[in-house]
Amino acid sequence: MLPDPMTPIRFGRLLLTGAAGNLGRELRPRLRRYCDTLRLSHRRDFGPAEPGEEIVLAHLENKAAMLALLEGVDAVVHMGGVSTEQPWQPILESNIVGAYNLYEAARHHRVWRIVFASSNHVTGFYRQDQVISPRDPARPDGLYGLSKAFGEDLAQLYFDRFGIETVSLRIGSSYAEPKDRRMLATWLSFDDLERLVVAALTAPVVGHSVIYGISDNATTWWDNTPARHVGYRPQDSSDTFRAAVEARQPRIDLDDPAARYQGGAFVRTGPFEDQA
Amino acid sequence: MLPDPMTPIRFGRLLLTGAAGNLGRELRPRLRRYCDTLRLSHRRDFGPAEPGEEIVLAHLENKAAMLALLEGVDAVVHMGGVSTEQPWQPILESNIVGAYNLYEAARHHRVWRIVFASSNHVTGFYRQDQVISPRDPARPDGLYGLSKAFGEDLAQLYFDRFGIETVSLRIGSSYAEPKDRRMLATWLSFDDLERLVVAALTAPVVGHSVIYGISDNATTWWDNTPARHVGYRPQDSSDTFRAAVEARQPRIDLDDPAARYQGGAFVRTGPFEDQA
Amino acid sequence: MLPDPMTPIRFGRLLLTGAAGNLGRELRPRLRRYCDTLRLSHRRDFGPAEPGEEIVLAHLENKAAMLALLEGVDAVVHMGGVSTEQPWQPILESNIVGAYNLYEAARHHRVWRIVFASSNHVTGFYRQDQVISPRDPARPDGLYGLSKAFGEDLAQLYFDRFGIETVSLRIGSSYAEPKDRRMLATWLSFDDLERLVVAALTAPVVGHSVIYGISDNATTWWDNTPARHVGYRPQDSSDTFRAAVEARQPRIDLDDPAARYQGGAFVRTGPFEDQA
Amino acid sequence: MLPDPMTPIRFGRLLLTGAAGNLGRELRPRLRRYCDTLRLSHRRDFGPAEPGEEIVLAHLENKAAMLALLEGVDAVVHMGGVSTEQPWQPILESNIVGAYNLYEAARHHRVWRIVFASSNHVTGFYRQDQVISPRDPARPDGLYGLSKAFGEDLAQLYFDRFGIETVSLRIGSSYAEPKDRRMLATWLSFDDLERLVVAALTAPVVGHSVIYGISDNATTWWDNTPARHVGYRPQDSSDTFRAAVEARQPRIDLDDPAARYQGGAFVRTGPFEDQA
Amino acid sequence: MLPDPMTPIRFGRLLLTGAAGNLGRELRPRLRRYCDTLRLSHRRDFGPAEPGEEIVLAHLENKAAMLALLEGVDAVVHMGGVSTEQPWQPILESNIVGAYNLYEAARHHRVWRIVFASSNHVTGFYRQDQVISPRDPARPDGLYGLSKAFGEDLAQLYFDRFGIETVSLRIGSSYAEPKDRRMLATWLSFDDLERLVVAALTAPVVGHSVIYGISDNATTWWDNTPARHVGYRPQDSSDTFRAAVEARQPRIDLDDPAARYQGGAFVRTGPFEDQA
Amino acid sequence: MLPDPMTPIRFGRLLLTGAAGNLGRELRPRLRRYCDTLRLSHRRDFGPAEPGEEIVLAHLENKAAMLALLEGVDAVVHMGGVSTEQPWQPILESNIVGAYNLYEAARHHRVWRIVFASSNHVTGFYRQDQVISPRDPARPDGLYGLSKAFGEDLAQLYFDRFGIETVSLRIGSSYAEPKDRRMLATWLSFDDLERLVVAALTAPVVGHSVIYGISDNATTWWDNTPARHVGYRPQDSSDTFRAAVEARQPRIDLDDPAARYQGGAFVRTGPFEDQA
Repeated sequence: MLPDPMTPIRFGRLLLTGAAGNLGRELRPRLRRYCDTLRLSHRRDFGPAEPGEEIVLAHLENKAAMLALLEGVDAVVHMGGVSTEQPWQPILESNIVGAYNLYEAARHHRVWRIVFASSNHVTGFYRQDQVISPRDPARPDGLYGLSKAFGEDLAQLYFDRFGIETVSLRIGSSYAEPKDRRMLATWLSFDDLERLVVAALTAPVVGHSVIYGISDNATTWWDNTPARHVGYRPQDSSDTFRAAVEARQPRIDLDDPAARYQGGAFVRTGPFEDQA
Repeated sequence: MLPDPMTPIRFGRLLLTGAAGNLGRELRPRLRRYCDTLRLSHRRDFGPAEPGEEIVLAHLENKAAMLALLEGVDAVVHMGGVSTEQPWQPILESNIVGAYNLYEAARHHRVWRIVFASSNHVTGFYRQDQVISPRDPARPDGLYGLSKAFGEDLAQLYFDRFGIETVSLRIGSSYAEPKDRRMLATWLSFDDLERLVVAALTAPVVGHSVIYGISDNATTWWDNTPARHVGYRPQDSSDTFRAAVEARQPRIDLDDPAARYQGGAFVRTGPFEDQA
Repeated sequence: MLPDPMTPIRFGRLLLTGAAGNLGRELRPRLRRYCDTLRLSHRRDFGPAEPGEEIVLAHLENKAAMLALLEGVDAVVHMGGVSTEQPWQPILESNIVGAYNLYEAARHHRVWRIVFASSNHVTGFYRQDQVISPRDPARPDGLYGLSKAFGEDLAQLYFDRFGIETVSLRIGSSYAEPKDRRMLATWLSFDDLERLVVAALTAPVVGHSVIYGISDNATTWWDNTPARHVGYRPQDSSDTFRAAVEARQPRIDLDDPAARYQGGAFVRTGPFEDQA
Repeated sequence: MLPDPMTPIRFGRLLLTGAAGNLGRELRPRLRRYCDTLRLSHRRDFGPAEPGEEIVLAHLENKAAMLALLEGVDAVVHMGGVSTEQPWQPILESNIVGAYNLYEAARHHRVWRIVFASSNHVTGFYRQDQVISPRDPARPDGLYGLSKAFGEDLAQLYFDRFGIETVSLRIGSSYAEPKDRRMLATWLSFDDLERLVVAALTAPVVGHSVIYGISDNATTWWDNTPARHVGYRPQDSSDTFRAAVEARQPRIDLDDPAARYQGGAFVRTGPFEDQA
Repeated sequence: MLPDPMTPIRFGRLLLTGAAGNLGRELRPRLRRYCDTLRLSHRRDFGPAEPGEEIVLAHLENKAAMLALLEGVDAVVHMGGVSTEQPWQPILESNIVGAYNLYEAARHHRVWRIVFASSNHVTGFYRQDQVISPRDPARPDGLYGLSKAFGEDLAQLYFDRFGIETVSLRIGSSYAEPKDRRMLATWLSFDDLERLVVAALTAPVVGHSVIYGISDNATTWWDNTPARHVGYRPQDSSDTFRAAVEARQPRIDLDDPAARYQGGAFVRTGPFEDQA
Repeated sequence: MLPDPMTPIRFGRLLLTGAAGNLGRELRPRLRRYCDTLRLSHRRDFGPAEPGEEIVLAHLENKAAMLALLEGVDAVVHMGGVSTEQPWQPILESNIVGAYNLYEAARHHRVWRIVFASSNHVTGFYRQDQVISPRDPARPDGLYGLSKAFGEDLAQLYFDRFGIETVSLRIGSSYAEPKDRRMLATWLSFDDLERLVVAALTAPVVGHSVIYGISDNATTWWDNTPARHVGYRPQDSSDTFRAAVEARQPRIDLDDPAARYQGGAFVRTGPFEDQA
């Protein structure tokens, strides 16, 4: 958690979806400071609410449940849905139908700001020696990345047509620390994740903005210049962990596509059906 | 039909989906010249096959049917699916699940070339005084355009990962003649549609290419320079019809969003549910 | 005059300023076909009105006169003002104060479309081996070009703020035929001038658009791609005159700045005061 | 004032116009360290000269006075002229005629370097979710911004034609501290203003360069990369004030154009004459 | 030969190197019309001079011979040197040392215009589904393309430093007709070659310009927009030959790098020494 | 030497060419920490090997010697060759033939990573008020810069064709401290040189990357954004030396081309033969 909150701007009721997921669990205690009530949602039960929280379980693909979930909400941090490469059916339900249900509910209830957990896998098929920006065309590396590209286009539509503002966070690798050499480029610390989410929630004008979620790493493939209006300034860096990570993984096999493309192992694993 | 076919390159079996739709009916007699067998598909029965044709009915959202449909096929001209702004459910089934089923079937049967009927509505929320190129970010104007943006990203994924090549045709307005002043910019004659589809089928290397489908109109919002490798050269022009169209529609109300945005009326109509 | 008018769209009352200038005299009989009444204006008397015309003399720097001039007008073709390099005072009065008066009058009378005769001298200090587009920064070659850059920025302001639409025509060299080798690049035939003005008047949506006014010359320094929405398609070309022009001017002295820069002689002549 | 001057390079006589204005008063004691004599100018009397200073009163629209003002000057920091949205006449006199007089005087006296106080209002009609650079086209938000766009084009002309170098500073909001949330993006501390002016005065080669004047704020709309040759490195940041500013202005009404556009309130206030 | 010469501008003495090569033989009778004396050069004897010609044999790597060759010359059309993929030694001698000798001789004799036969193989490693322009970075496909990239950089240096102007022609495939499907994109007719060389010789200002040498083919990988100031307008097209060429080569094996990259077979053949 | 090595990744045998040159002598003790054996090479004898070193003398233009030199090598830091403006013959031999020999040897011995000391003089003819990136076209300022442009194109070829990866370092001015005002922009500290070389050696995927070698200087002409994947983060800055350098060189004569162009004095000195 940040020792010194970047902004005191508070929301009345803030919704965090995917509250029991990896990042949801990190954000849950952090976001409580930015709202009167933190509504938490997940697919499955994850225990009781803490003070200042309320819990509403919902399946993303359930339209009525989503409509109920967004009632009375001021803004949404949408971390819910499938967050790894999985078969088409769950991705379709949670990330495509689910995203549509979320935006329809936001439109119905006039929720004007959504922070959408997109993913670097939207552009995972660029090479690791390319530096791209949020304006470069999507090159998803699997069904998961494809579904996140869909979510971003959906967010653009709901802004252009209905004025609902979204910041799509193309999150890199958000873990306690970088686990391998790819993450030296893609790592997002939990504190920087909080900074990013809060900046995305409170920036005065965002339309639909796309920003990569990374800490201040020396190595990067992503140029966030077009998103500087969001006001995100990372304060952590994978550089601290570089020596240890390189020692653990001194060699990289460039014949492996996972080593050449930004998406890493996502470019070669996955649920395509007649693959073993 | 073109009096002088641009290329004699023939396919063994060519699949035309959406064969009974508006553009499918135009393409059906034209494509016969480029293949030994033209397999025709549609959602519903549309009569008997002509010589050189075979008919296989299939619903796009039916995965097994799609697998069967692509068996033995050399290339696909995918005109099938919803082609207007409609409610979410049919768009989801035909254009999202359906597109996925098509590409999975192509991967299974090793079909290497797909011509995908995308739409100018992928970028319908650009203004009519902007000239954009296929590299500019998507700004869909409705659920239909959103589903076509999904289809393009899917095509990119199947090329990057499996080598299946696609030309996504962002078709403007393909009718016998331009009907209103917007179509002076967006019109694609049927002969030029044939030229475009044939170029897309026979260009030696396309990866995943995106190209706007328009005739050689004096007014245009779309710069196809990045797609000149496809080899499409329009030979018709809306200019021939300009005087008549302008006489029929001498005034345009710029307060109507349909007049300001490239997507025309799509930007303000549609199936969003609690709209009347 | 065009044998076959490109568009029959008519205006009620169309105002042509600078009606007795070089280009005004060419446009006067041509524009009559596009309106019920052609209001003609100039600084000094230039004879009687023809049928379908009305004449209102006005000095551009006279605000009240300009207010009167635009009353009842549907659209303006603004060819008035200083059109050569001259001392600061007349340029200030006609092209700066005058342009401001024109747009204020348009705002007052709710005139929604202005075709503004800007000039290639807005970018005259680019080299003749550079191909630029309307989006490149201004590099005026003298006070005249500077005043036209002002006029374009003014037009942008009145669109962004008040919705008044303008097409700024950066006219090259509009003469009966090209007079020297520079004009092989910059020539605009009178028929193409008419086509350009009419396209600018009748294009449905222009915001503030900038377009270079040139015929279809083989040699050009200006890429009009960003203005293709205007619908201007030149049909003449300086190529017809190339052999004759080159025979008359077989050698070019590259030590002369006039030979190196797009603005030609404008880059070295002019009224700067302690020169001569 | 900077405790540690960034550069000791001194000028013989440095002219500061607008010396009694808001920023002029800040710069006056700071610039004294960079010259033998600081000539101060303003429209109206503002008291006596301090040691190392000399005072020459002048109206910008008075050509003879401007000629006298620049005599013997090595470089100019031009902070003079109208600096807020005002009626046309004073803007015309001070910022258009005045800027012309200044550059003519510089040409006459062979003054080779001018630091020109331009304004972010040159591009005030871009949205607050756009990140632009000095190369993007002008979109002034009022007459003031328009006059500053004129000044920049004038500076470009005098460099291309006469070799007079200028750095145009598109100053954001230079105050003791940021006053509202817009200024979290646009704030320029007084110390950073000094750094910027000194860098602009002493950079070896600038031609005509345009640079936005902002501190190192986390939120920004302006990418100064094309101006990094100027050597300006801000050391202050609005981030320090963020919490306090957000607490004072917790809500922003996006229906107000002032909230959506970079120019803030300038986009909707102003002296247009038949407005009340 | 062109029935109707595009320009009558004549040179006193024009030098054509590589006069006995494939393109030299085509240009020899054509260039005679543009000069009083056509000096022809080649490495080996190729018969006697015709009227209006003079022959000077020279090896490009022989500095003294090159100095003699350029004496009294007004302009050079440099078609000499190795024009296919060959071992390093001949490429080094003819295309690297030879190009240096040529430009040094031009500098010595104050020859101000060189038309340099570069090659599309300077960028042969771009894919055939990419449309590039002369501003994109070099990606040579072999030693030949590498030597031509060197020649272009040399030409740039001699312009920037000494003012010698060059047009580098990145010639596609100049033959009587296109031989295979790659040449549908790269073909340059002999008449268009003449048009291109004459435009490059006579354009008033070229600095160092790079232009691709292709006819007006429907399929192309090269966007010559940045070189439109050269004034080259092709009048032939590979489209005429398309049906015949496609009939001869109905299938393309995309597993062959020669089919995927713009350089064609050059990308996989060549003289690298321990290959064979 | 860096007190705290950025990466512990070690090579078995690392080759440093030009080991007795200015930068070679700096790198020699620094690189020892990153390998088991540091093979050192130079043209002439430079004394005995230290522990962990081996010395192999070789002339770059000697192909057999270069083949022997690269045997058993894991990666190369190529600082060898001519590093100042010199006559054509030594540049040809060392930097053109020598670079070819180096890459042929690397190909033969399957060496997959080369760090190539290129130079800012590849782009020395850009003006000092332009900020360029590694993607802008080469504008060498002399024969030395030309030879380095050749080396970069060669590296691109050997990556595209053979997969040998290179980082081309366009080194600015690497000295103990900046010597003049130009070096305030171009300075690279020795510690940052080490950081840059080590990043270039150990970045997982580089293809052929080009990066400018500069410290974190406030003034810069080079935007390394496209090379951020290399992971180079400078920690020194010329700013520390600015006051002292400016005091030593308070005036700059802009009439001297060396003051206007990025290449400095290289743009006007050199070995062109009939110059004195």
